[in-house]
Amino acid sequence: MPDVNMGLYFVSELVGTAMLLLLGCGVVANVALVKNKGFNGGFLMVNWGWGLAVFAGVLVSAYSGAILNPAVGIGLFVQHLLDPTKGIDFTHYAVATGAELLGAIIGAVLCWLAYKQHFDEEPEPANKLGVFSTGPAIRSYGWNLVTEIIGTFVLVFVIFAFADYGDVKIGTPGGLGALSALPVALLVVAIGASLGGPTGYAINPARDLGPRIAHAILPIKGKGSSDWAYSWVPVVGPLLGGTIAALLSPVLLHLAK
Amino acid sequence: MPDVNMGLYFVSELVGTAMLLLLGCGVVANVALVKNKGFNGGFLMVNWGWGLAVFAGVLVSAYSGAILNPAVGIGLFVQHLLDPTKGIDFTHYAVATGAELLGAIIGAVLCWLAYKQHFDEEPEPANKLGVFSTGPAIRSYGWNLVTEIIGTFVLVFVIFAFADYGDVKIGTPGGLGALSALPVALLVVAIGASLGGPTGYAINPARDLGPRIAHAILPIKGKGSSDWAYSWVPVVGPLLGGTIAALLSPVLLHLAK
Amino acid sequence: MPDVNMGLYFVSELVGTAMLLLLGCGVVANVALVKNKGFNGGFLMVNWGWGLAVFAGVLVSAYSGAILNPAVGIGLFVQHLLDPTKGIDFTHYAVATGAELLGAIIGAVLCWLAYKQHFDEEPEPANKLGVFSTGPAIRSYGWNLVTEIIGTFVLVFVIFAFADYGDVKIGTPGGLGALSALPVALLVVAIGASLGGPTGYAINPARDLGPRIAHAILPIKGKGSSDWAYSWVPVVGPLLGGTIAALLSPVLLHLAK
Amino acid sequence: MPDVNMGLYFVSELVGTAMLLLLGCGVVANVALVKNKGFNGGFLMVNWGWGLAVFAGVLVSAYSGAILNPAVGIGLFVQHLLDPTKGIDFTHYAVATGAELLGAIIGAVLCWLAYKQHFDEEPEPANKLGVFSTGPAIRSYGWNLVTEIIGTFVLVFVIFAFADYGDVKIGTPGGLGALSALPVALLVVAIGASLGGPTGYAINPARDLGPRIAHAILPIKGKGSSDWAYSWVPVVGPLLGGTIAALLSPVLLHLAK
Repeated sequence: MPDVNMGLYFVSELVGTAMLLLLGCGVVANVALVKNKGFNGGFLMVNWGWGLAVFAGVLVSAYSGAILNPAVGIGLFVQHLLDPTKGIDFTHYAVATGAELLGAIIGAVLCWLAYKQHFDEEPEPANKLGVFSTGPAIRSYGWNLVTEIIGTFVLVFVIFAFADYGDVKIGTPGGLGALSALPVALLVVAIGASLGGPTGYAINPARDLGPRIAHAILPIKGKGSSDWAYSWVPVVGPLLGGTIAALLSPVLLHLAK
Repeated sequence: MPDVNMGLYFVSELVGTAMLLLLGCGVVANVALVKNKGFNGGFLMVNWGWGLAVFAGVLVSAYSGAILNPAVGIGLFVQHLLDPTKGIDFTHYAVATGAELLGAIIGAVLCWLAYKQHFDEEPEPANKLGVFSTGPAIRSYGWNLVTEIIGTFVLVFVIFAFADYGDVKIGTPGGLGALSALPVALLVVAIGASLGGPTGYAINPARDLGPRIAHAILPIKGKGSSDWAYSWVPVVGPLLGGTIAALLSPVLLHLAK
Repeated sequence: MPDVNMGLYFVSELVGTAMLLLLGCGVVANVALVKNKGFNGGFLMVNWGWGLAVFAGVLVSAYSGAILNPAVGIGLFVQHLLDPTKGIDFTHYAVATGAELLGAIIGAVLCWLAYKQHFDEEPEPANKLGVFSTGPAIRSYGWNLVTEIIGTFVLVFVIFAFADYGDVKIGTPGGLGALSALPVALLVVAIGASLGGPTGYAINPARDLGPRIAHAILPIKGKGSSDWAYSWVPVVGPLLGGTIAALLSPVLLHLAK
Repeated sequence: MPDVNMGLYFVSELVGTAMLLLLGCGVVANVALVKNKGFNGGFLMVNWGWGLAVFAGVLVSAYSGAILNPAVGIGLFVQHLLDPTKGIDFTHYAVATGAELLGAIIGAVLCWLAYKQHFDEEPEPANKLGVFSTGPAIRSYGWNLVTEIIGTFVLVFVIFAFADYGDVKIGTPGGLGALSALPVALLVVAIGASLGGPTGYAINPARDLGPRIAHAILPIKGKGSSDWAYSWVPVVGPLLGGTIAALLSPVLLHLAK
């Protein structure tokens, strides 16, 4: 790997993930909280919002190659274990994951500030939590886990295919830069529209856990439970999905440039 | 054609078509099955879902040049008969078609797993079949066939124009790679929005027949008929549309680069 | 201008405009005619449908540089009068316009075939005409003309800016090819969403007159008037808008590459 | 900076911002004013409309590098103060801002002409003002200011990241040209969907103040107040957001190409 300043690496992942969560939680707030101009704007609007949140997040974290997601990170780490010329080592993975979790908390706090009055006027506690973290449409930890595994598998598997084809090195300085932001954004729109129905597509442990911590800490008016009972599903599912994608990639993806 | 490992060619088409069907059937499940977060998300969401499903499918099948559709395949085969320097020969067509059908079945099964509980709670059998396979809004095999022929003609004709202009060799290793995925995806959004009203735009025999086989085999709770009476329309129509496109391309498309 | 085979030039404009109208009228049929799967799909779906119809039309008319619109054509002709090294001469303009009108008729007929049963079952004659041609939301020939002039001015002015910047030569063999299709498509989405409210954005005389002729000729079940009284507005307005854009471009657009 | 003709620089900013406001106000008119074909088209349609309005605006203001927004301009000016090899000096900032304000007024007038009859028939004065300028969903100058600061911070911060990465020089002749229009457009779609709920996302002082002046001056039938009490929020908020983004960029953005 090129020389990396681990402090800047940390900052880059933190800034990118904060941007991702500010915009991602933002679109849910717009659609779900009362009196917003985008209230009831529809699920496709949520899908575009999250996809373009990734777009913006990637653009601002060029230094670290825009991992932004511990499930992508574990995929890169597993890839590195299989082939030391690829992916990221444990140190990078650990630093990135810490930065992502902290960035996700910060992004969620900024979203709460941007929508402060709408949180105050929203009568339904579940809608408030829904802005921060995902929850299942039909609660069943096993099947919810399956859905998160499949969704994250798609995310990491397709990103790996795209990265291999285009010599894009995610997690490496300059790796996933501005030119790669659009395909990843469209992929996230796709996963949201196609696999987001049952669980709201966390597909990213930091995306779900960080805001849940923010929800628990922030003095949100009339907030209810942070639903910690469910909180392990959108962490474990994505980590498994990312691992499986990294393991199957060498078998299922073959380049011919 | 470049040297091709037919085993990897098969895997590539299988993986790409499985990805296409997982995401494509997925967006219908999200919109059509009760309690989903994208329930009643609208037809435009379905169009984007299928278009971006093609996007993801193309990205993961670079080795085989991302045919993903026996109607595109037959077009490439007819093109090869007219001009042996172009398209794909019968062996490649046959191998690709087999892989696409098997991949489509696998993708549909994965979609069922991702939406398992929503299939279980959905009361209407027709909605369950609708996730897997297409059906006509107004049943009339002759006119339904016309609609599928026109839609698939547009798909294959425009892809051929794009491929000729950009020296993109679909069905050839590395032919239709990451850079070509977006135009094809947008074209599929276009066909869905513009020609998807009467029949739900199969425009791909594997896309319709594979999931119909999955529907017949899977132990889906409360499933109804797999509607085999209609099943030949989304196979024959696309094959005819792709053939006509390949025959008319040399007459109607002229390059001037 | 490069050597041009005027027969192929004619075919190229005809094919491109037929594709444009098949998909463009198609999305209106899907949204407006009863029992379609995209029924009541919303105006944004119509905007994307027309934008991507332009996308597909441009991709299949590379030989003629994809004019597809007599209002763009008159702009190119006026540009040529002002600066003979640019735009297209009268012969090319006349040939392209004839091809566009004929292509528009063919595209509308194909759309009618694709949606044949939905035309038959639709009870409201105005909805049938609406698939073919535009009509005003509030009838007032003067103001409707103003809206069409402004909309077409935007289309031609922005295309000219884009073409100048990128050395794209519309109407010249290979001029507006695959790489330029996306910006033009997005521009048409923009004009539809932003200026399509009052008149349904013809912004193209062939797009409106061709299908109106088709509507008058075709044996459409239960069809009503073809509304010839309004038919001059979406012809004259776009021609004026395109002319004004060509006249103001040298004053208002300046490059600095 | 390269040699610049300040007259053409002024014209370029004026034309670009007029295009931005014509299309941006246009999509709100289409969705909000009675009898329009896009009436009640949804917030996502408004987001795409504004995003693509930026797209068109950037395309027609290549000479000045498409600032189009005094909040982006102040960011570039602050950037210049920190590092004289970057951004724009005070003269350019002042000329651009004047042009943007005048252009915004012109664009709003053109929008009013395009939608003249729908303004006449619209019964609700607030809907008329809403076409021109933004207003808060829940009035609270402090929190509305916070939302505008955050939204504009995202706009300028991400643009700076994108510009740094791609060596794009906004505000410099040819700087932000056709190739950069799409990422900026998508970013504006993102901000609208994700942060547009509480205040309608002015994120641009010219975008809000120019049309508000037009609203005050134009003889709009049955118009109500121009709500000058709120008018400072979408001016001050964006200027603060752009300034903060410029100050934090050197700390938070690091390139690694």
